[in-house]
Amino acid sequence: MKIEMTPIGVFHTKTTDIPRHWSVSDVVGTIEIDEMYGPGLKDIAPGEKIVVLFNFHKSKKFDPSFLNQTPPHRQKPMGVFSICSPYRPNPIGLSVLEVLAVDKNIITVKHADMLDGTPILDIKPHITGTSNCPSCPEDARGD
Amino acid sequence: MKIEMTPIGVFHTKTTDIPRHWSVSDVVGTIEIDEMYGPGLKDIAPGEKIVVLFNFHKSKKFDPSFLNQTPPHRQKPMGVFSICSPYRPNPIGLSVLEVLAVDKNIITVKHADMLDGTPILDIKPHITGTSNCPSCPEDARGD
Repeated sequence: MKIEMTPIGVFHTKTTDIPRHWSVSDVVGTIEIDEMYGPGLKDIAPGEKIVVLFNFHKSKKFDPSFLNQTPPHRQKPMGVFSICSPYRPNPIGLSVLEVLAVDKNIITVKHADMLDGTPILDIKPHITGTSNCPSCPEDARGD
Repeated sequence: MKIEMTPIGVFHTKTTDIPRHWSVSDVVGTIEIDEMYGPGLKDIAPGEKIVVLFNFHKSKKFDPSFLNQTPPHRQKPMGVFSICSPYRPNPIGLSVLEVLAVDKNIITVKHADMLDGTPILDIKPHITGTSNCPSCPEDARGD
């Protein structure tokens, strides 16, 4: 079974020294969403966090040697599903980014850990519990 | 540009009444990972939270009428990138689940909002900041 995805846009940044993870990144860049999807950005506002799913487009093809990998700063190998390595069975990355500005189909973001040219697959709200879940009934909102 | 994904496993549950979102779900089920990927689960432990990416395999094909959708419990349409609707340009779902048990290639999870038979694309650690980020230098861990 194969599932086919088509990027909804691309990430741009002038920074070439990209940190390994969004939680330690101050990199600023822009997510350029295809114009056809622009109306879907109408409720994204500066100051909020978004979850960005993207394609690790520069990653090597996965093989069993990547099932356990030793992250930088660690001394022993860890299972691929417990780390954020770009070498994974499906090369999907996830970043939690802060929105600095939205202008039509362009979102300026901070804390990026994506390379310039990274294909974007999806943007989702950053939900931490029922209190900020748009799909939850009001009487469940309280965490 | 097309990006091809292959499921790494499948979700099983006996529950048929699946809540719309993990934050309001107590549904228990199992993620059966293909045996070839089993060694990649070695650092997933009961009690921890994992991020599960999956394919909304029952969703209708996206068309522009889905750019703005009114979620249940809401009174006005919202942009697709600010809600968790299964109708999105790339039908990828994201759930934050609690691990109850791990047995070889089977993970028992709670708080599921996936249908029985849902194809699983990836499992990632649930990272909330530098303190639990396996890719971050130790001197950055403190949030």
